[in-house]
Amino acid sequence: MGTTTYSEGLLPYIPFYYVIWSDDLLSASEVQVVKKAFESDESLSDDDKTVLESWLDKDNPPKNGEIKKWQQLITESHATLIESEIYPLEIFSQKVAQYYGGDPKPNEQLQEIERNLGIQPNHYNHLFNVEVVHQPFSNHYDGFKIDILLNARFENELQVFRKFLEWPIFKWEIPRDKEEARSKVLEQLKVLSAHGWGALAYPKAYGGKENIESYASIFEHLMFVDGSLAVKFGVQFGLFGGSVHHLGSKRHHDLYLEDTGSGRLLGCFAMTETGHGSNVRGIKTTATYVHDDRVLVIHTPGKNDNKEYIGNALHATMATVFVQLIVAGKAIGVHAVLVPLRNDKHELLEGIHIDDNGHKLGLNGVDNGKIWFNQVKVPVENLLDRYGSIDPNGKYRSEIKNANKRFFTMLGTLVGGRICVAKGALAGSNMALTITAKYALKRRQFNDNIKIQEDLLIDYPSHQLRLIPKVASAYVYHIVLQRAMQDYAQSEHKDKRKIETQVAGLKATITHFSTVAIQECREACGGKGYLLENRIADLKNDTDIFTTFEGDNTVLLQLCAKGVLSDFKSELNSDGFVSVLKLLGTRISDRFATINPAYVSKVDSTHLYNHKFHLHALDFRLRRLTYTAAMRIRNYIKKGMPSYQAFLKVQTHLIELGRAYSEALAIKWYYDFVAKMDDGDYKELMYRLGALHGLSTIRENTSWYLEQGYFGSTKSKAVRQRVERLSTELRPHINALVEGFGIPDHLLTAPIAD
Amino acid sequence: MGTTTYSEGLLPYIPFYYVIWSDDLLSASEVQVVKKAFESDESLSDDDKTVLESWLDKDNPPKNGEIKKWQQLITESHATLIESEIYPLEIFSQKVAQYYGGDPKPNEQLQEIERNLGIQPNHYNHLFNVEVVHQPFSNHYDGFKIDILLNARFENELQVFRKFLEWPIFKWEIPRDKEEARSKVLEQLKVLSAHGWGALAYPKAYGGKENIESYASIFEHLMFVDGSLAVKFGVQFGLFGGSVHHLGSKRHHDLYLEDTGSGRLLGCFAMTETGHGSNVRGIKTTATYVHDDRVLVIHTPGKNDNKEYIGNALHATMATVFVQLIVAGKAIGVHAVLVPLRNDKHELLEGIHIDDNGHKLGLNGVDNGKIWFNQVKVPVENLLDRYGSIDPNGKYRSEIKNANKRFFTMLGTLVGGRICVAKGALAGSNMALTITAKYALKRRQFNDNIKIQEDLLIDYPSHQLRLIPKVASAYVYHIVLQRAMQDYAQSEHKDKRKIETQVAGLKATITHFSTVAIQECREACGGKGYLLENRIADLKNDTDIFTTFEGDNTVLLQLCAKGVLSDFKSELNSDGFVSVLKLLGTRISDRFATINPAYVSKVDSTHLYNHKFHLHALDFRLRRLTYTAAMRIRNYIKKGMPSYQAFLKVQTHLIELGRAYSEALAIKWYYDFVAKMDDGDYKELMYRLGALHGLSTIRENTSWYLEQGYFGSTKSKAVRQRVERLSTELRPHINALVEGFGIPDHLLTAPIAD
Repeated sequence: MGTTTYSEGLLPYIPFYYVIWSDDLLSASEVQVVKKAFESDESLSDDDKTVLESWLDKDNPPKNGEIKKWQQLITESHATLIESEIYPLEIFSQKVAQYYGGDPKPNEQLQEIERNLGIQPNHYNHLFNVEVVHQPFSNHYDGFKIDILLNARFENELQVFRKFLEWPIFKWEIPRDKEEARSKVLEQLKVLSAHGWGALAYPKAYGGKENIESYASIFEHLMFVDGSLAVKFGVQFGLFGGSVHHLGSKRHHDLYLEDTGSGRLLGCFAMTETGHGSNVRGIKTTATYVHDDRVLVIHTPGKNDNKEYIGNALHATMATVFVQLIVAGKAIGVHAVLVPLRNDKHELLEGIHIDDNGHKLGLNGVDNGKIWFNQVKVPVENLLDRYGSIDPNGKYRSEIKNANKRFFTMLGTLVGGRICVAKGALAGSNMALTITAKYALKRRQFNDNIKIQEDLLIDYPSHQLRLIPKVASAYVYHIVLQRAMQDYAQSEHKDKRKIETQVAGLKATITHFSTVAIQECREACGGKGYLLENRIADLKNDTDIFTTFEGDNTVLLQLCAKGVLSDFKSELNSDGFVSVLKLLGTRISDRFATINPAYVSKVDSTHLYNHKFHLHALDFRLRRLTYTAAMRIRNYIKKGMPSYQAFLKVQTHLIELGRAYSEALAIKWYYDFVAKMDDGDYKELMYRLGALHGLSTIRENTSWYLEQGYFGSTKSKAVRQRVERLSTELRPHINALVEGFGIPDHLLTAPIAD
Repeated sequence: MGTTTYSEGLLPYIPFYYVIWSDDLLSASEVQVVKKAFESDESLSDDDKTVLESWLDKDNPPKNGEIKKWQQLITESHATLIESEIYPLEIFSQKVAQYYGGDPKPNEQLQEIERNLGIQPNHYNHLFNVEVVHQPFSNHYDGFKIDILLNARFENELQVFRKFLEWPIFKWEIPRDKEEARSKVLEQLKVLSAHGWGALAYPKAYGGKENIESYASIFEHLMFVDGSLAVKFGVQFGLFGGSVHHLGSKRHHDLYLEDTGSGRLLGCFAMTETGHGSNVRGIKTTATYVHDDRVLVIHTPGKNDNKEYIGNALHATMATVFVQLIVAGKAIGVHAVLVPLRNDKHELLEGIHIDDNGHKLGLNGVDNGKIWFNQVKVPVENLLDRYGSIDPNGKYRSEIKNANKRFFTMLGTLVGGRICVAKGALAGSNMALTITAKYALKRRQFNDNIKIQEDLLIDYPSHQLRLIPKVASAYVYHIVLQRAMQDYAQSEHKDKRKIETQVAGLKATITHFSTVAIQECREACGGKGYLLENRIADLKNDTDIFTTFEGDNTVLLQLCAKGVLSDFKSELNSDGFVSVLKLLGTRISDRFATINPAYVSKVDSTHLYNHKFHLHALDFRLRRLTYTAAMRIRNYIKKGMPSYQAFLKVQTHLIELGRAYSEALAIKWYYDFVAKMDDGDYKELMYRLGALHGLSTIRENTSWYLEQGYFGSTKSKAVRQRVERLSTELRPHINALVEGFGIPDHLLTAPIAD
């Protein structure tokens, strides 16, 4: 038994105070937690309480000598720290106290502090020179339960589908000859469609379940099998089948939809041309209507006007071809036409030429190709005519008179695809994060001289910081994309403009996130991350193009920003004076926020972790960027600049606005979801993930917030510190969190994730 | 002829003023440029000058109505803007004036404004509603001359080598079966070595030229051929040959160096183990000295103790194996031993087992493998004994008594390799930037309604911003790595600690830069960037591991930071009081800078473009982060925390410090180089590139500078605007700049870069 001058009551508090002061843990609300705890601790004398209170003063903190004395007292106790205890620090403190003659008994007040301050073993186990019995991760949360919480809407279907993916044909393999990979993916596709998984989004009359949300969940899961399979699946059922479904009329559905869903008819979606990718309106392929024969003549006019990157081009027998429709010599604008490509023997039809696009960075299991048309005739009935048709007299008819509006309505069918692309990217980074976290929970490197075992990678602050905020963001984006798909599914017959703006921004933001996250994972796994066997390499290469296809991210962010600005404009114009007043009101309250010193410098953890702070900060950024972009454009135009040029002048501002809009939307939708959860541990966990994501997002834009005076430097630093703190607090739950992504074990084949 | 109320003298100034006010171009120094110009313009009346002066007042700018009038006046002139003129805006302005009855003659004052304000056609051609005769890029600078300026030290050798690379065997090909790729790379390696290119760094007595700088330049160029070739070349001649050269003694040189240089002896460098990568000191392979037989017994003790990722493992006949040396039962620490792997028939020798590491994300032309040793005996003479040997009595001898120092001295031989890795990464991103810039100079997408031709990608502000600052940084880093290699070459017999710190930071910073830059290039080229034929895919995958091998970036940044801190500590300790005073002086002057409002809010372009500002800002960051890291560690230690834990606590701070050190060093070395250039256009260009890199680097850390009060929000915004402005100013020279990277045309095989 050791000797000490501290009273028996104080002893168990000493390890707590040591942790607190070694780490500058204390914010005002945390001081309150500690104070409340010891004040209601009946084992303490009044003198003890006075001492404990005196040690809590941030303006007059305990001297270094005092803290060092605590450290020595702890070291000399030779108490063992057991991380697997429910309250490891409280138990440890009792042992320390016991060594100096204290009476060890559970102390609820200390447990209260431990819980409320979020003090985690990995947060302090380095601070003590004592034996530590490590527990790589906590079992407080159950990954399986998290998965169910996230996917409640499709849980049953998903369980069946995950089981289905145990079929040997879905087993992942390393060697990848391009041709072999394509054959395998084709075979996998056929198995999936033969079992009805391809037709999920189609009407019941054609073998489907009219459930695009389930379809999207299935698509997402295919990323765990192979990126090429997911993309080929998306081309066949989402793009080709989707174009028949959404741009065609009943005749087309009757002829093709069931065969498409069952995989008997393979199709491709020929929109992009070598010369025109982002600028779809500029495509050059023509479909000239010849009234005498009631045919459309499909033609590739120039050198760069061939279709390119067309998925399924080598396996498909039919294509939805986007063309400039010409009727009676007049260009009507972009339309889609079904064009047969091959006969029963899989030979190309006359006038059609298809080249392989060759080797790609990733997705080599997808047969992308280039397609040329040389005066190819198809019956006029092949025009997908939901939004525009040619009548028996050879006259063009459309219910949408405005050509511009018609174009965007047709392109609106791409929205579902964009949500899927973002979901696919996210599935890819979820898998990479899972593998990386599992590896970091067993890989050790370097140690203190006195230790035998080296430290786990995940216990390095830098490693926590590179992974855990990304896991939090992945949760937010998962919820957000589910909501987007739900809204999209319900928007079928409504004005799709709003969801288009939302999805354009979210697709760009989330695919970018995934690219960055997977890169981080590759590097965080070192050389092991570079080996194909560990899957990250493929995930990286396969998802890399997700930032480009179905809408280049830079273009989409501008599209999104323009949507925001046009809302802003119509808000301004809708009822003139009132909305200007509203705008002024907004500005005034913003200004209030920015000059209110209490807000600008509020650094308490209660405030920083509060979802209202995140919502406000992200919304403030959105509103301010909207307003300033609008004003800049207006000023340019006032000086006589044409509006195209004015928009070009503020291009980088618009891209920022697109990002800000997406981030504000994401956090709003996420917190909407969490608010509706049942109260309890899991809800709290989700709030903490939201806080980490929110603070990280704010942190990424810190310079902007500082420039705007939205917060000062003290708060800016506090945000940074809280991002690190929250990462540390969530570190024990990292295993449950990645298991919550719901990736079936049998698909997680990376040896380093074993 | 049109009519106008403006005087004849004012007319040619109007397009200039329109450009200036449409764009908020004016900083105080720029106002001076304009003022000086018109004041000395003899064609102007005093009234004209009064008007021109009144239009220059930032506090009372011309009304929008006035500016709009200018715009209409310009539009109605129907003057044609010809971008290929030497002074396009001045010539254009004369044409506008002529339309309204002006007398067109060259105006030197306007030329002065055009030159000094860096007004570029792409900067204003959008502002006018007139016909524009575009010139995709300017020929003001010559890429070939830039290349010579950069590589003056090896220009002759490089020209010969570039010609040499025209041999058909170096032709890049798409299909890449792993085995075929390895065979081809092996063959290429043998051709190179047969012609003496491998031995460049070795002593003349062994067929070399004792020129490691040339060697590094050659290595860099091999990246343009194939990343696998570069890496295999580096393993054979740099790592294996380098270990024989630097860790061995004359006996080893005589036996192996000539054969290594000529490629007759293929070797590998077996340091990393599955269980120990970054923590080299923890490797487990043993070499136990047996005195009776004068042999070392090489052994792999446990499951994860095999060597891994060893390049050349399948082709090599010998390996430099890093082991724990055990003499008379005592562990002496890490040493290197030459171990034969295979016999003349290329069969593995007894006790040696080698497995293929299999498919990797990139570099599949390199035969990486795992190696196990089962009690393999080699003569004691095989110990590379420059820093430690076993004498005839079986006693261990070393001139370096301190085991720690001995370890770091041996690892110091890795420094050259680290410079080469950074050079290779940079060569990779230079090639990607070249391809991307060339594509952006011909790819068009979207346009204004009134225009027939779509806009070039490079003319979009967002595209300029994603590429041009990276091109500028590439220039800075190229110069910096040349300097590092020069210093390293000259450090042969000196204390290498300083250059180690420098290279650790630079390797991490530059390989990270390259990874980010190549990713940006892939995305900036859209779908074309995803096709293997366009090379970016390979550059991306091949260089991806450069952030990991020869030292993981996260570990290296901490190594660098620790070097900085130990310098700081010895500076403090060296002569006690004086250095503390110096430190105080530093802090005081920093504080002065941060509170001097004139500096904090100085936004004039003369100041922002000045290299002294960049040097000061980056050095300020370095000094402040050094000081605060040191103080934080000291405070933790004062509270009784063991130093290992204290360092862990500030880990993310240390990583920032490592970055800050590297960036401050890079800009210093770059400006040192530029200062020594001959005066003239090219020197000015290099200063502008430095400014863009400097401002971009400051911009990346804006939030930190704002937090520190180093500058205020006005300056912060000005820095951002100047990054965009400089990118625009350099845009006409982008072709010359990427040609200045000196990549031979015959190696630039990407179709999109044609």
